[in-house]
Amino acid sequence: MSMNSPFYPVLLAGGSGTRFWPRSRRARAKQVLSLDGEQSMIQQTVQRLRPLARLEKFWIITNDLLSETLQEQLADIPTEHMLLEPAARNTAPAAGLAAFLLERISPDAILGMFPADHVVSDEDKFRDTVRKGIQLASQDSNIVVLGIPPTRIETGYGYVELGSQTAPGVHRVRRFTEKPNQVRAEEFIASRNFLWNSGIFLWKASTLAAAIREHLSETAPFLEQIAAAYGTSKFEAVFAELYPRCENISLDYAVLEPRATKGEHHSNIFCLPADFGWNDLGSWAALYDHQRGASPETNVVDAGGGYTLHADGNYVYAPGRFVALVGVKDLVVVQTDDALLITTRHQSQDVSKVVKHLKDTSREELL
Amino acid sequence: MSMNSPFYPVLLAGGSGTRFWPRSRRARAKQVLSLDGEQSMIQQTVQRLRPLARLEKFWIITNDLLSETLQEQLADIPTEHMLLEPAARNTAPAAGLAAFLLERISPDAILGMFPADHVVSDEDKFRDTVRKGIQLASQDSNIVVLGIPPTRIETGYGYVELGSQTAPGVHRVRRFTEKPNQVRAEEFIASRNFLWNSGIFLWKASTLAAAIREHLSETAPFLEQIAAAYGTSKFEAVFAELYPRCENISLDYAVLEPRATKGEHHSNIFCLPADFGWNDLGSWAALYDHQRGASPETNVVDAGGGYTLHADGNYVYAPGRFVALVGVKDLVVVQTDDALLITTRHQSQDVSKVVKHLKDTSREELL
Repeated sequence: MSMNSPFYPVLLAGGSGTRFWPRSRRARAKQVLSLDGEQSMIQQTVQRLRPLARLEKFWIITNDLLSETLQEQLADIPTEHMLLEPAARNTAPAAGLAAFLLERISPDAILGMFPADHVVSDEDKFRDTVRKGIQLASQDSNIVVLGIPPTRIETGYGYVELGSQTAPGVHRVRRFTEKPNQVRAEEFIASRNFLWNSGIFLWKASTLAAAIREHLSETAPFLEQIAAAYGTSKFEAVFAELYPRCENISLDYAVLEPRATKGEHHSNIFCLPADFGWNDLGSWAALYDHQRGASPETNVVDAGGGYTLHADGNYVYAPGRFVALVGVKDLVVVQTDDALLITTRHQSQDVSKVVKHLKDTSREELL
Repeated sequence: MSMNSPFYPVLLAGGSGTRFWPRSRRARAKQVLSLDGEQSMIQQTVQRLRPLARLEKFWIITNDLLSETLQEQLADIPTEHMLLEPAARNTAPAAGLAAFLLERISPDAILGMFPADHVVSDEDKFRDTVRKGIQLASQDSNIVVLGIPPTRIETGYGYVELGSQTAPGVHRVRRFTEKPNQVRAEEFIASRNFLWNSGIFLWKASTLAAAIREHLSETAPFLEQIAAAYGTSKFEAVFAELYPRCENISLDYAVLEPRATKGEHHSNIFCLPADFGWNDLGSWAALYDHQRGASPETNVVDAGGGYTLHADGNYVYAPGRFVALVGVKDLVVVQTDDALLITTRHQSQDVSKVVKHLKDTSREELL
């Protein structure tokens, strides 16, 4: 891909994820943690996209709490491309703002929206798919979503229903669905016609901007005013005043689902199915699966050495410490300077209840 | 009891207990740990006996690794009363040395032998029993053992079989038994005639010295020579040369069991049964039971705050940290600056296998 490519990666990094407590905190959200290696999740995301775009073309939408850490971790990305949301908002206002900003640079700019906290094991295949998506998105007012072939029955993700095939590896999208219940999820998998919605979208800035104007008619003017103020001395004030007035809604719900109801031949939404070893690492249990991989050793111990006896299926994070596991199974034990989480892999989602308890009891130092 | 009492408490504090790893280490054995409160086990032991003897009458038998910590913890006990074994030896040589030393001070000195790592909840009852034992031991060549009424079938302790009653709360001892197997332990408990051997003995220095001369005829001369050198410039050299040549055997096995075979009317061994809330805290599980006591809260968490959700029966030690327990049962989790132990209450005895592994792999810093 030439360096004059119109491709602009926009990384959504505003989440305050609680699922990796006690490692994740308000100011140390999942995207800035090094969960599975040396680099943080967002550093890995940038690294993965780096061959497709110069660093000056990256944009990051995040929040004030994370900005300092992000500026350290992504020192080569222009700080003026790091937008700090004055209020937490779902994906539609964030993506919309990026669209209006890039539309002013070039209406034909291809905006790629990427969550900043996922892992990908086959980076070449990932980039091949994104390249294909950029090409498809540069035609007409196409919208492209990357779809992940499901590897298990999963009720925690949205799904994309495939329509007709238009080219090898390219399908029209028939429908976007919210997170299904167990029965529907089983039907989805059995049909082989539903893919996981990766949250990765590609479209022209002008296409997305038009979609926001159409589907979020009250919010769009606020975002346009913010984009117009960008680069001026008034920007911060305008951003702070108008962004909180934007509707707090996801891009899927606000734009893609209603758009798809126009019918697959009118909506111009395309899905590129691609199995590039995607994992959103949604819990300690998911991290265990990812880190264990195909290893015959069933304990994943991130520590300064260890010894196991009659112990299986445990995830332990205790940097620098010698960890001894005796007769325990399927536990998750995570230790930080100020906290210790002890749970099971099957209940590791409930860590959000711990965070809720900490909020309820105003333990700010642990949030 | 008058301050001119002939009572001399001798604390056996040489153990290198591994059962509280990772808290216990070679230089931080159980007796110097604060397991169930502010004071260490040996500080509690001294405190408990303090009303019965001036501090100048206490003697401590320990080893070089622990001496510094013990001198800090027991600053008021004369350092010349702290004997550092030049080689690890079982209880017979340690008790014998104390007997020969005290015999030189006064043959009628009453020597009380106390393990330094047990807990007692009813200290008044404990002292009443010891007072009674001192009185009994001061007559003739009586030997007194404190017996604990069993509260469970336990195969980890030696037992004392009671013979005829000679006064209210005083029995002759018929027999000392080694740790029984499960079937015998059940028989012992059912008979109501067997008590746990507390390891607490009282006798005149001359009585114990004579018993050592009789039953350990090869070892006794070494101990007498060491005692004779005490207070001279040669002491350290003599101690270092002769003590390692003493037989490595327990007092129970070397003296009490054979003595008891003379028959209860000739052996002059008496047992004072007393239920003073004794617990030898032999494992993390035992500490859990002790700390939990009669509390309806089933988790024992020694930490800087905590939150539990569907969690029962866990013991956690993580000083200063906020501990979250979610959906876990009967675990033992112990965290120190350099190590993290994760096991279950039922397998917490197996921590000795961790220590063995550390020895085998020369992880000296963790031992």
